[in-house]
Amino acid sequence: MKNADTLKRLKIVEGHMKGIVRMVEEDAYCIDVIRQIHAVESALHKVSTQILDNHLNSCVITAVQGENLADRQRVLNEVLEVFETSSRV
Amino acid sequence: MKNADTLKRLKIVEGHMKGIVRMVEEDAYCIDVIRQIHAVESALHKVSTQILDNHLNSCVITAVQGENLADRQRVLNEVLEVFETSSRV
Amino acid sequence: MKNADTLKRLKIVEGHMKGIVRMVEEDAYCIDVIRQIHAVESALHKVSTQILDNHLNSCVITAVQGENLADRQRVLNEVLEVFETSSRV
Amino acid sequence: MKNADTLKRLKIVEGHMKGIVRMVEEDAYCIDVIRQIHAVESALHKVSTQILDNHLNSCVITAVQGENLADRQRVLNEVLEVFETSSRV
Repeated sequence: MKNADTLKRLKIVEGHMKGIVRMVEEDAYCIDVIRQIHAVESALHKVSTQILDNHLNSCVITAVQGENLADRQRVLNEVLEVFETSSRV
Repeated sequence: MKNADTLKRLKIVEGHMKGIVRMVEEDAYCIDVIRQIHAVESALHKVSTQILDNHLNSCVITAVQGENLADRQRVLNEVLEVFETSSRV
Repeated sequence: MKNADTLKRLKIVEGHMKGIVRMVEEDAYCIDVIRQIHAVESALHKVSTQILDNHLNSCVITAVQGENLADRQRVLNEVLEVFETSSRV
Repeated sequence: MKNADTLKRLKIVEGHMKGIVRMVEEDAYCIDVIRQIHAVESALHKVSTQILDNHLNSCVITAVQGENLADRQRVLNEVLEVFETSSRV
């Protein structure tokens, strides 16, 4: 169900991108294009947050409660990695 | 010519977004989806930078050298605005 | 031990901030000040990542393995929150 | 006058950093430290925006209206550079 919402949001972003391509084809004002690109980036960060929410409440819990130490370490490192790169766009 | 390159990059991002939608439809690993979303955000920031580059070297020069003070102020405020929002995604 | 390193990095940032204050007092070139501010932001994100790393490998593991569901939820929500706000500076 | 405000804000950030160092020395909760670091990053981006505002309305106007093409190009490239790096913290 959550996945369905993620999919819906991503398809909206895809549609938004198509609109931005059209804006550039029709020679829209530069700043307006940048504003729309910014709106897409913002929407993408919201989707990422939603996906991470699902991930924390499923895979991360399972791995941290599991017996496999390597698995647990990998899962925690991945969470750290997405945090680290989140501000380097 | 520059515009053609911007358009090409935006179409690549659009294709990338289609790929991410497919990943979620095929139930790809959460972290892999977040990584791809991050790659799209990164590509979008590069396109924004390219568009701003064109803008600075055309509209901004024209407005700053022009007689219309309101126009000059508007153009400089827009540049400030895209800087300000650039880090709030 | 990890904490000692975090503390050391934060003190370096504090010293860096002092240097930026001095730059502005001495009327340094705007762009140079912005570059130094950016360097501080970058250093701060690295410290945040280090603190989160420690947090994931201590409190998060303890809470997720613990019996207290409210605690586990709170800890996971906090991780999500720092991810969400990380790109909104 | 604007400079006085920039200086004041930067000194507030410096004080804030001192407070964060103290928090870590007193072993504050990790997430609370990250939240305060985030507040500092946010304040720093506001100061950067203010400095860029001054810069656009002084040096940039002067250079763009001036005769020296190399100077104009340098100034516009610097504005582009601060935009480009603004989202890579």
